[in-house]
Amino acid sequence: MTRWRIVLEYDGAPFAGWQLQEGEPTVQGAVEEALVPLLGHAARVHGAGRTDAGVHAAVQVAVFETTTERTAREIRDGLNARLPPAIACVDAEVADLDFDPRRSRHTKTYRYTWLTRPAPSPLRRGRVWHIRASLDVRSMHEAAQAIVGTHDLTSFRAAGDGAEHPVRTIAAASVTESGDEVHLRMKGVGFLRHTVRIVAGTLYEIGLGERSPTWFGEVLAARDRTAAGRTAPPEGLLLERVDYGEGEPSSS
Amino acid sequence: MTRWRIVLEYDGAPFAGWQLQEGEPTVQGAVEEALVPLLGHAARVHGAGRTDAGVHAAVQVAVFETTTERTAREIRDGLNARLPPAIACVDAEVADLDFDPRRSRHTKTYRYTWLTRPAPSPLRRGRVWHIRASLDVRSMHEAAQAIVGTHDLTSFRAAGDGAEHPVRTIAAASVTESGDEVHLRMKGVGFLRHTVRIVAGTLYEIGLGERSPTWFGEVLAARDRTAAGRTAPPEGLLLERVDYGEGEPSSS
Repeated sequence: MTRWRIVLEYDGAPFAGWQLQEGEPTVQGAVEEALVPLLGHAARVHGAGRTDAGVHAAVQVAVFETTTERTAREIRDGLNARLPPAIACVDAEVADLDFDPRRSRHTKTYRYTWLTRPAPSPLRRGRVWHIRASLDVRSMHEAAQAIVGTHDLTSFRAAGDGAEHPVRTIAAASVTESGDEVHLRMKGVGFLRHTVRIVAGTLYEIGLGERSPTWFGEVLAARDRTAAGRTAPPEGLLLERVDYGEGEPSSS
Repeated sequence: MTRWRIVLEYDGAPFAGWQLQEGEPTVQGAVEEALVPLLGHAARVHGAGRTDAGVHAAVQVAVFETTTERTAREIRDGLNARLPPAIACVDAEVADLDFDPRRSRHTKTYRYTWLTRPAPSPLRRGRVWHIRASLDVRSMHEAAQAIVGTHDLTSFRAAGDGAEHPVRTIAAASVTESGDEVHLRMKGVGFLRHTVRIVAGTLYEIGLGERSPTWFGEVLAARDRTAAGRTAPPEGLLLERVDYGEGEPSSS
Protein backbone atom coordinates (compact mmCIF):
# COMPACT_ATOMS: atom_id res chain seq x y z
CA MET A 1 0.00 0.00 0.00
CA THR A 2 1.40 3.40 -1.00
CA ARG A 3 0.04 6.71 0.26
CA TRP A 4 0.50 9.46 -2.31
CA ARG A 5 0.63 13.16 -1.48
CA ILE A 6 -0.37 15.33 -4.42
CA VAL A 7 -0.37 19.10 -4.88
CA LEU A 8 -3.30 20.44 -6.89
CA GLU A 9 -3.97 23.84 -8.45
CA TYR A 10 -7.50 24.72 -9.54
CA ASP A 11 -9.81 27.38 -10.83
CA GLY A 12 -12.83 27.01 -8.54
CA ALA A 13 -15.35 28.60 -10.90
CA PRO A 14 -16.76 25.42 -12.51
CA PHE A 15 -17.03 23.52 -9.20
CA ALA A 16 -19.47 23.29 -6.30
CA GLY A 17 -16.39 23.31 -4.05
CA TRP A 18 -13.73 20.79 -3.05
CA GLN A 19 -15.90 18.29 -1.21
CA LEU A 20 -17.79 15.49 -2.91
CA GLN A 21 -21.50 16.19 -3.41
CA GLU A 22 -23.86 13.86 -5.16
CA GLY A 23 -24.82 15.16 -8.60
CA GLU A 24 -22.56 18.26 -8.41
CA PRO A 25 -19.18 18.82 -10.08
CA THR A 26 -16.56 18.97 -7.31
CA VAL A 27 -12.77 19.08 -7.30
CA GLN A 28 -12.54 15.99 -5.11
CA GLY A 29 -14.96 14.16 -7.42
CA ALA A 30 -13.00 15.12 -10.54
CA VAL A 31 -9.70 13.94 -9.03
CA GLU A 32 -11.22 10.66 -7.84
CA GLU A 33 -12.69 10.11 -11.30
CA ALA A 34 -9.34 10.78 -12.99
CA LEU A 35 -7.61 8.32 -10.65
CA VAL A 36 -9.78 5.31 -11.57
CA PRO A 37 -8.25 4.60 -15.01
CA LEU A 38 -4.80 5.56 -13.72
CA LEU A 39 -4.85 3.16 -10.74
CA GLY A 40 -7.28 0.55 -11.99
CA HIS A 41 -9.41 0.95 -8.88
CA ALA A 42 -11.41 3.62 -7.04
CA ALA A 43 -9.53 5.66 -4.41
CA ARG A 44 -10.77 8.17 -1.86
CA VAL A 45 -8.96 11.54 -1.97
CA HIS A 46 -8.59 13.68 1.18
CA GLY A 47 -7.63 17.37 0.90
CA ALA A 48 -6.05 19.82 3.38
CA GLY A 49 -8.72 22.49 2.94
CA ARG A 50 -12.39 22.15 2.02
CA THR A 51 -12.64 25.12 -0.33
CA ASP A 52 -16.17 26.33 -1.07
CA ALA A 53 -17.94 26.68 -4.39
CA GLY A 54 -16.08 29.10 -6.65
CA VAL A 55 -12.98 29.34 -4.43
CA HIS A 56 -9.59 28.80 -6.11
CA ALA A 57 -6.46 26.99 -4.98
CA ALA A 58 -2.88 27.73 -6.01
CA VAL A 59 -1.80 24.91 -3.70
CA GLN A 60 -4.13 22.26 -2.31
CA VAL A 61 -2.50 19.25 -0.70
CA ALA A 62 -4.34 15.93 -0.92
CA VAL A 63 -3.69 12.22 -0.35
CA PHE A 64 -4.91 8.88 -1.65
CA GLU A 65 -3.81 5.27 -1.26
CA THR A 66 -3.17 2.60 -3.84
CA THR A 67 -1.62 -0.84 -4.20
CA THR A 68 -0.91 -0.14 -7.90
CA GLU A 69 2.76 0.53 -8.67
CA ARG A 70 3.23 3.97 -10.23
CA THR A 71 6.09 6.46 -10.42
CA ALA A 72 5.58 10.04 -9.19
CA ARG A 73 5.76 11.21 -12.79
CA GLU A 74 3.12 8.70 -13.88
CA ILE A 75 0.79 9.96 -11.14
CA ARG A 76 1.34 13.63 -12.01
CA ASP A 77 1.25 13.34 -15.80
CA GLY A 78 -1.47 10.68 -15.74
CA LEU A 79 -3.70 12.92 -13.67
CA ASN A 80 -3.02 15.93 -15.90
CA ALA A 81 -3.92 13.90 -18.98
CA ARG A 82 -7.30 13.00 -17.43
CA LEU A 83 -8.29 16.01 -15.29
CA PRO A 84 -10.49 18.77 -16.69
CA PRO A 85 -8.47 21.92 -17.62
CA ALA A 86 -9.64 23.74 -14.48
CA ILE A 87 -7.59 21.33 -12.30
CA ALA A 88 -3.91 20.37 -12.50
CA CYS A 89 -1.67 18.10 -10.47
CA VAL A 90 1.45 20.18 -9.87
CA ASP A 91 3.38 17.59 -7.88
CA ALA A 92 3.13 14.01 -6.59
CA GLU A 93 5.28 12.22 -4.03
CA VAL A 94 5.10 9.22 -1.75
CA ALA A 95 3.99 10.21 1.77
CA ASP A 96 4.33 8.51 5.15
CA LEU A 97 1.41 6.17 5.76
CA ASP A 98 0.36 8.28 8.75
CA PHE A 99 0.44 11.57 6.81
CA ASP A 100 -3.01 13.21 6.89
CA PRO A 101 -3.32 16.56 5.08
CA ARG A 102 -5.87 17.85 7.63
CA ARG A 103 -4.49 16.34 10.86
CA SER A 104 -0.72 16.46 10.38
CA ARG A 105 0.93 19.63 11.75
CA HIS A 106 0.43 22.34 9.19
CA THR A 107 -0.83 25.82 8.43
CA LYS A 108 -2.98 26.97 5.54
CA THR A 109 -2.71 30.45 4.08
CA TYR A 110 -5.72 31.94 2.32
CA ARG A 111 -5.57 35.15 0.29
CA TYR A 112 -8.54 37.38 -0.42
CA THR A 113 -8.18 39.92 -3.27
CA TRP A 114 -10.07 43.17 -3.90
CA LEU A 115 -9.66 45.10 -7.17
CA THR A 116 -10.07 48.75 -6.21
CA ARG A 117 -9.95 50.64 -9.51
CA PRO A 118 -13.06 52.05 -11.20
CA ALA A 119 -12.90 49.71 -14.22
CA PRO A 120 -13.23 45.92 -14.06
CA SER A 121 -10.25 43.84 -15.23
CA PRO A 122 -10.98 41.32 -18.01
CA LEU A 123 -7.58 39.67 -17.44
CA ARG A 124 -8.29 39.14 -13.70
CA ARG A 125 -12.00 38.37 -14.12
CA GLY A 126 -13.22 35.71 -11.69
CA ARG A 127 -10.11 36.10 -9.49
CA VAL A 128 -10.93 39.32 -7.61
CA TRP A 129 -13.78 41.12 -5.88
CA HIS A 130 -14.17 44.26 -7.97
CA ILE A 131 -15.35 47.12 -5.72
CA ARG A 132 -15.00 50.49 -7.43
CA ALA A 133 -13.91 52.32 -4.25
CA SER A 134 -10.47 52.67 -2.68
CA LEU A 135 -9.80 51.03 0.69
CA ASP A 136 -8.04 52.30 3.81
CA VAL A 137 -5.50 49.48 3.94
CA ARG A 138 -3.81 50.65 7.13
CA SER A 139 -7.10 50.63 9.10
CA MET A 140 -8.00 47.21 7.71
CA HIS A 141 -4.62 45.77 8.67
CA GLU A 142 -4.81 47.27 12.17
CA ALA A 143 -8.36 45.92 12.66
CA ALA A 144 -7.46 42.43 11.42
CA GLN A 145 -4.85 41.97 14.20
CA ALA A 146 -7.70 41.34 16.69
CA ILE A 147 -8.30 37.92 15.14
CA VAL A 148 -4.70 36.73 15.61
CA GLY A 149 -4.51 34.17 18.41
CA THR A 150 -7.02 31.60 19.67
CA HIS A 151 -10.63 32.81 19.62
CA ASP A 152 -14.23 31.72 19.39
CA LEU A 153 -14.91 32.58 15.72
CA THR A 154 -18.70 32.20 15.83
CA SER A 155 -19.09 35.73 14.38
CA PHE A 156 -17.03 34.65 11.36
CA ARG A 157 -18.72 31.34 10.72
CA ALA A 158 -21.37 30.61 8.09
CA ALA A 159 -24.88 30.46 9.54
CA GLY A 160 -25.94 26.81 9.70
CA ASP A 161 -22.37 25.62 10.36
CA GLY A 162 -23.41 25.16 14.01
CA ALA A 163 -22.21 21.63 14.67
CA GLU A 164 -18.51 22.48 14.73
CA HIS A 165 -16.60 23.63 17.76
CA PRO A 166 -16.04 27.36 16.99
CA VAL A 167 -12.60 27.96 18.54
CA ARG A 168 -9.71 28.30 16.10
CA THR A 169 -6.16 29.63 16.15
CA ILE A 170 -5.19 32.23 13.57
CA ALA A 171 -1.39 32.51 13.35
CA ALA A 172 -1.26 35.68 11.25
CA ALA A 173 -3.50 38.16 9.43
CA SER A 174 -2.35 40.97 7.15
CA VAL A 175 -3.85 43.47 4.72
CA THR A 176 -1.52 44.85 2.08
CA GLU A 177 -1.71 46.86 -1.12
CA SER A 178 -0.24 45.75 -4.45
CA GLY A 179 -0.88 48.11 -7.34
CA ASP A 180 -4.65 48.36 -7.77
CA GLU A 181 -5.26 45.28 -5.60
CA VAL A 182 -5.70 44.90 -1.84
CA HIS A 183 -4.85 41.52 -0.31
CA LEU A 184 -6.01 39.99 2.97
CA ARG A 185 -3.92 37.00 4.03
CA MET A 186 -4.91 34.73 6.90
CA LYS A 187 -2.74 31.89 8.11
CA GLY A 188 -4.06 29.26 10.46
CA VAL A 189 -4.37 25.57 11.21
CA GLY A 190 -8.10 25.21 10.76
CA PHE A 191 -10.77 27.57 9.47
CA LEU A 192 -14.52 27.50 9.96
CA ARG A 193 -16.83 27.66 6.98
CA HIS A 194 -16.67 31.11 5.27
CA THR A 195 -14.33 32.56 7.92
CA VAL A 196 -11.97 34.32 5.52
CA ARG A 197 -14.84 35.60 3.37
CA ILE A 198 -16.76 36.98 6.38
CA VAL A 199 -13.57 38.58 7.71
CA ALA A 200 -13.09 40.11 4.22
CA GLY A 201 -16.68 41.38 4.17
CA THR A 202 -16.23 42.90 7.64
CA LEU A 203 -12.85 44.51 6.91
CA TYR A 204 -14.37 45.91 3.72
CA GLU A 205 -16.72 48.14 5.75
CA ILE A 206 -13.71 49.37 7.74
CA GLY A 207 -11.74 49.95 4.54
CA LEU A 208 -14.57 52.08 3.15
CA GLY A 209 -14.54 54.16 6.36
CA GLU A 210 -18.07 53.11 7.30
CA ARG A 211 -16.78 51.54 10.52
CA SER A 212 -13.77 52.19 12.74
CA PRO A 213 -10.97 49.60 13.13
CA THR A 214 -12.04 48.90 16.75
CA TRP A 215 -15.42 47.64 15.46
CA PHE A 216 -13.70 44.48 14.23
CA GLY A 217 -12.79 43.45 17.80
CA GLU A 218 -16.38 44.09 18.88
CA VAL A 219 -17.67 41.85 16.11
CA LEU A 220 -15.27 39.09 17.20
CA ALA A 221 -16.32 39.45 20.86
CA ALA A 222 -20.04 39.32 19.97
CA ARG A 223 -19.86 35.63 18.93
CA ASP A 224 -22.79 36.35 16.64
CA ARG A 225 -22.72 35.99 12.85
CA THR A 226 -25.21 38.86 12.46
CA ALA A 227 -22.72 41.26 14.10
CA ALA A 228 -20.24 40.82 11.21
CA GLY A 229 -20.28 42.13 7.65
CA ARG A 230 -21.40 40.32 4.53
CA THR A 231 -19.78 37.15 3.18
CA ALA A 232 -17.42 38.42 0.46
CA PRO A 233 -17.90 36.72 -2.94
CA PRO A 234 -15.99 33.43 -3.45
CA GLU A 235 -14.08 34.40 -6.62
CA GLY A 236 -11.73 36.67 -4.62
CA LEU A 237 -10.59 33.79 -2.39
CA LEU A 238 -7.55 31.60 -3.04
CA LEU A 239 -6.00 28.80 -0.97
CA GLU A 240 -2.50 30.18 -1.49
CA ARG A 241 -0.31 27.70 0.38
CA VAL A 242 -0.26 24.81 2.81
CA ASP A 243 2.86 24.38 4.96
CA TYR A 244 3.59 21.20 6.88
CA GLY A 245 5.93 20.98 9.84
CA GLU A 246 4.57 24.11 11.50
CA GLY A 247 1.42 24.94 13.43
CA GLU A 248 -0.44 22.81 15.97
CA PRO A 249 -2.29 19.57 15.21
CA SER A 250 -5.57 20.54 13.56
CA SER A 251 -8.82 19.83 15.33
CA SER A 252 -10.90 20.46 12.19
CA MET B 1 -16.01 67.83 -32.13
CA THR B 2 -14.15 66.06 -29.34
CA ARG B 3 -11.53 63.39 -29.88
CA TRP B 4 -11.45 60.90 -27.02
CA ARG B 5 -8.45 58.76 -26.13
CA ILE B 6 -9.45 55.60 -24.30
CA VAL B 7 -7.36 52.87 -22.69
CA LEU B 8 -8.76 49.36 -23.08
CA GLU B 9 -7.88 46.06 -21.40
CA TYR B 10 -9.10 42.83 -22.94
CA ASP B 11 -8.98 39.07 -22.85
CA GLY B 12 -8.45 38.21 -26.52
CA ALA B 13 -9.84 34.66 -26.32
CA PRO B 14 -13.41 35.35 -27.49
CA PHE B 15 -12.35 37.65 -30.35
CA ALA B 16 -11.14 37.26 -33.91
CA GLY B 17 -8.65 40.02 -33.09
CA TRP B 18 -8.79 43.79 -32.71
CA GLN B 19 -9.70 44.75 -36.24
CA LEU B 20 -13.25 44.85 -37.55
CA GLN B 21 -14.21 41.81 -39.63
CA GLU B 22 -17.64 41.26 -41.09
CA GLY B 23 -19.52 38.55 -39.20
CA GLU B 24 -16.75 37.95 -36.62
CA PRO B 25 -16.61 39.14 -32.99
CA THR B 26 -13.81 41.71 -32.78
CA VAL B 27 -12.64 44.07 -30.05
CA GLN B 28 -12.99 47.10 -32.30
CA GLY B 29 -16.49 45.98 -33.28
CA ALA B 30 -17.56 45.46 -29.65
CA VAL B 31 -16.28 48.91 -28.63
CA GLU B 32 -17.98 50.59 -31.59
CA GLU B 33 -21.23 48.81 -30.74
CA ALA B 34 -21.04 49.90 -27.08
CA LEU B 35 -20.45 53.52 -28.15
CA VAL B 36 -23.65 53.85 -30.20
CA PRO B 37 -26.12 54.09 -27.28
CA LEU B 38 -23.59 56.10 -25.27
CA LEU B 39 -23.02 58.74 -27.95
CA GLY B 40 -26.29 58.53 -29.86
CA HIS B 41 -24.41 57.99 -33.12
CA ALA B 42 -21.98 55.54 -34.71
CA ALA B 43 -18.27 56.29 -34.25
CA ARG B 44 -15.20 54.70 -35.79
CA VAL B 45 -12.59 53.53 -33.25
CA HIS B 46 -8.86 53.42 -34.12
CA GLY B 47 -6.42 51.44 -31.98
CA ALA B 48 -2.65 51.67 -31.48
CA GLY B 49 -2.00 47.99 -32.17
CA ARG B 50 -3.93 45.53 -34.32
CA THR B 51 -3.77 42.53 -32.04
CA ASP B 52 -4.52 39.18 -33.68
CA ALA B 53 -7.18 36.62 -32.81
CA GLY B 54 -6.71 35.38 -29.24
CA VAL B 55 -4.07 37.99 -28.31
CA HIS B 56 -4.64 39.92 -25.06
CA ALA B 57 -4.11 43.57 -24.16
CA ALA B 58 -3.34 45.00 -20.73
CA VAL B 59 -3.19 48.41 -22.36
CA GLN B 60 -4.56 49.21 -25.80
CA VAL B 61 -4.89 52.90 -26.68
CA ALA B 62 -7.71 53.89 -29.04
CA VAL B 63 -9.49 57.04 -30.22
CA PHE B 64 -12.90 58.06 -31.49
CA GLU B 65 -14.64 61.36 -32.22
CA THR B 66 -18.01 62.67 -31.14
CA THR B 67 -20.02 65.90 -31.03
CA THR B 68 -21.99 64.54 -28.04
CA GLU B 69 -21.06 66.17 -24.71
CA ARG B 70 -19.84 63.57 -22.23
CA THR B 71 -17.55 63.65 -19.19
CA ALA B 72 -14.53 61.31 -19.03
CA ARG B 73 -16.28 59.36 -16.31
CA GLU B 74 -19.44 58.97 -18.41
CA ILE B 75 -17.35 57.61 -21.28
CA ARG B 76 -15.44 55.14 -19.07
CA ASP B 77 -18.35 53.94 -16.94
CA GLY B 78 -20.82 54.03 -19.84
CA LEU B 79 -18.52 51.83 -21.91
CA ASN B 80 -17.99 49.40 -19.01
CA ALA B 81 -21.75 49.10 -18.50
CA ARG B 82 -22.18 48.10 -22.17
CA LEU B 83 -19.01 46.20 -23.10
CA PRO B 84 -18.86 42.40 -22.84
CA PRO B 85 -16.93 41.24 -19.71
CA ALA B 86 -13.86 40.36 -21.81
CA ILE B 87 -13.27 44.08 -22.54
CA ALA B 88 -12.97 47.03 -20.14
CA CYS B 89 -12.34 50.73 -20.59
CA VAL B 90 -9.69 51.52 -17.98
CA ASP B 91 -9.39 55.23 -18.74
CA ALA B 92 -10.83 57.97 -20.96
CA GLU B 93 -9.54 61.46 -21.62
CA VAL B 94 -9.90 64.21 -24.19
CA ALA B 95 -7.08 64.07 -26.75
CA ASP B 96 -5.68 66.63 -29.17
CA LEU B 97 -7.58 66.58 -32.45
CA ASP B 98 -4.39 65.53 -34.26
CA PHE B 99 -3.63 62.65 -31.85
CA ASP B 100 -3.52 59.38 -33.78
CA PRO B 101 -2.75 56.25 -31.72
CA ARG B 102 -0.85 54.64 -34.62
CA ARG B 103 0.90 57.67 -36.13
CA SER B 104 1.69 59.86 -33.11
CA ARG B 105 5.18 59.29 -31.66
CA HIS B 106 4.95 56.19 -29.49
CA THR B 107 6.28 52.76 -28.69
CA LYS B 108 4.35 49.57 -28.07
CA THR B 109 5.62 46.83 -25.75
CA TYR B 110 4.48 43.27 -26.31
CA ARG B 111 5.13 40.48 -23.83
CA TYR B 112 5.21 36.81 -24.72
CA THR B 113 4.91 34.30 -21.83
CA TRP B 114 6.00 30.66 -21.63
CA LEU B 115 5.03 28.44 -18.68
CA THR B 116 7.94 26.03 -18.26
CA ARG B 117 6.83 23.65 -15.49
CA PRO B 118 5.63 20.08 -16.18
CA ALA B 119 2.02 20.71 -15.08
CA PRO B 120 -0.39 23.12 -16.76
CA SER B 121 -1.69 26.05 -14.66
CA PRO B 122 -5.49 26.29 -14.38
CA LEU B 123 -5.18 29.80 -12.91
CA ARG B 124 -3.06 31.02 -15.87
CA ARG B 125 -4.90 29.03 -18.52
CA GLY B 126 -5.26 30.92 -21.80
CA ARG B 127 -2.54 33.43 -20.80
CA VAL B 128 0.64 31.39 -21.36
CA TRP B 129 2.22 28.96 -23.81
CA HIS B 130 2.63 25.83 -21.70
CA ILE B 131 5.74 23.94 -22.85
CA ARG B 132 6.79 21.25 -20.41
CA ALA B 133 10.54 21.84 -20.91
CA SER B 134 12.85 24.38 -19.28
CA LEU B 135 14.39 27.10 -21.44
CA ASP B 136 17.92 28.49 -21.62
CA VAL B 137 16.93 32.08 -20.89
CA ARG B 138 20.44 33.51 -21.22
CA SER B 139 20.88 32.11 -24.75
CA MET B 140 17.45 33.36 -25.77
CA HIS B 141 18.19 36.85 -24.47
CA GLU B 142 21.56 36.94 -26.18
CA ALA B 143 20.03 35.75 -29.48
CA ALA B 144 17.19 38.27 -29.34
CA GLN B 145 19.61 41.23 -29.34
CA ALA B 146 20.17 40.71 -33.08
CA ILE B 147 16.70 42.10 -33.80
CA VAL B 148 17.30 45.39 -31.94
CA GLY B 149 17.70 48.25 -34.41
CA THR B 150 16.24 48.82 -37.86
CA HIS B 151 15.95 45.68 -39.96
CA ASP B 152 14.05 44.02 -42.77
CA LEU B 153 11.80 41.70 -40.74
CA THR B 154 10.54 39.56 -43.62
CA SER B 155 11.68 36.40 -41.78
CA PHE B 156 9.42 37.37 -38.86
CA ARG B 157 6.34 38.32 -40.83
CA ALA B 158 3.24 36.17 -41.41
CA ALA B 159 3.18 34.57 -44.85
CA GLY B 160 0.64 36.43 -46.98
CA ASP B 161 1.36 39.75 -45.26
CA GLY B 162 3.38 40.66 -48.37
CA ALA B 163 1.95 44.08 -49.17
CA GLU B 164 3.59 45.92 -46.28
CA HIS B 165 7.02 47.46 -46.33
CA PRO B 166 9.01 44.99 -44.16
CA VAL B 167 11.50 47.33 -42.45
CA ARG B 168 10.80 48.08 -38.77
CA THR B 169 12.71 49.48 -35.81
CA ILE B 170 12.82 47.40 -32.63
CA ALA B 171 13.93 49.58 -29.70
CA ALA B 172 14.49 46.75 -27.18
CA ALA B 173 14.16 43.00 -26.83
CA SER B 174 14.68 41.01 -23.64
CA VAL B 175 14.11 37.48 -22.34
CA THR B 176 13.78 37.13 -18.57
CA GLU B 177 12.73 34.48 -16.06
CA SER B 178 10.07 35.02 -13.39
CA GLY B 179 9.35 31.96 -11.24
CA ASP B 180 8.12 29.23 -13.59
CA GLU B 181 7.50 31.69 -16.44
CA VAL B 182 9.82 33.00 -19.16
CA HIS B 183 8.99 36.39 -20.69
CA LEU B 184 10.01 37.85 -24.04
CA ARG B 185 9.45 41.60 -24.26
CA MET B 186 9.75 43.52 -27.51
CA LYS B 187 9.42 47.28 -27.71
CA GLY B 188 9.01 49.07 -31.01
CA VAL B 189 7.10 51.64 -32.99
CA GLY B 190 5.46 49.34 -35.48
CA PHE B 191 5.31 45.56 -35.77
CA LEU B 192 4.54 43.37 -38.76
CA ARG B 193 1.84 40.72 -38.55
CA HIS B 194 2.89 37.87 -36.16
CA THR B 195 6.39 39.33 -35.60
CA VAL B 196 6.48 38.78 -31.83
CA ARG B 197 4.96 35.31 -32.11
CA ILE B 198 7.42 34.20 -34.83
CA VAL B 199 10.32 35.65 -32.80
CA ALA B 200 8.96 33.68 -29.80
CA GLY B 201 8.71 30.49 -31.86
CA THR B 202 12.28 30.98 -33.11
CA LEU B 203 13.77 31.80 -29.69
CA TYR B 204 11.94 28.74 -28.35
CA GLU B 205 14.16 26.44 -30.46
CA ILE B 206 17.22 28.22 -29.08
CA GLY B 207 15.87 27.96 -25.53
CA LEU B 208 15.45 24.21 -25.95
CA GLY B 209 19.06 23.95 -27.13
CA GLU B 210 18.06 22.72 -30.59
CA ARG B 211 19.71 25.76 -32.17
CA SER B 212 22.58 28.05 -31.17
CA PRO B 213 22.00 31.73 -30.34
CA THR B 214 23.80 32.80 -33.53
CA TRP B 215 21.12 31.03 -35.59
CA PHE B 216 18.70 33.86 -34.74
CA GLY B 217 20.86 36.40 -36.64
CA GLU B 218 21.02 34.03 -39.61
CA VAL B 219 17.22 33.76 -39.64
CA LEU B 220 16.92 37.56 -39.58
CA ALA B 221 19.46 37.94 -42.41
CA ALA B 222 17.68 35.32 -44.55
CA ARG B 223 14.63 37.58 -45.10
CA ASP B 224 12.62 34.41 -45.55
CA ARG B 225 9.73 33.35 -43.34
CA THR B 226 10.56 29.66 -43.86
CA ALA B 227 13.98 30.20 -42.23
CA ALA B 228 12.35 31.08 -38.87
CA GLY B 229 10.63 28.92 -36.28
CA ARG B 230 6.93 28.30 -35.81
CA THR B 231 4.40 31.02 -34.98
CA ALA B 232 3.96 30.72 -31.19
CA PRO B 233 0.31 30.36 -30.06
CA PRO B 234 -1.63 33.62 -29.59
CA GLU B 235 -2.70 33.09 -25.96
CA GLY B 236 0.85 33.75 -24.69
CA LEU B 237 0.91 37.23 -26.26
CA LEU B 238 -0.09 40.43 -24.48
CA LEU B 239 0.03 44.06 -25.62
CA GLU B 240 1.54 45.19 -22.33
CA ARG B 241 1.91 48.94 -22.78
CA VAL B 242 1.80 51.82 -25.24
CA ASP B 243 3.95 54.87 -24.47
CA TYR B 244 3.49 58.18 -26.23
CA GLY B 245 6.10 60.90 -26.44
CA GLU B 246 8.90 58.51 -27.31
CA GLY B 247 9.95 56.58 -30.39
CA GLU B 248 9.85 57.69 -34.00
CA PRO B 249 6.74 58.45 -36.05
CA SER B 250 5.26 55.14 -37.06
CA SER B 251 5.15 54.15 -40.68
CA SER B 252 2.72 51.29 -40.06
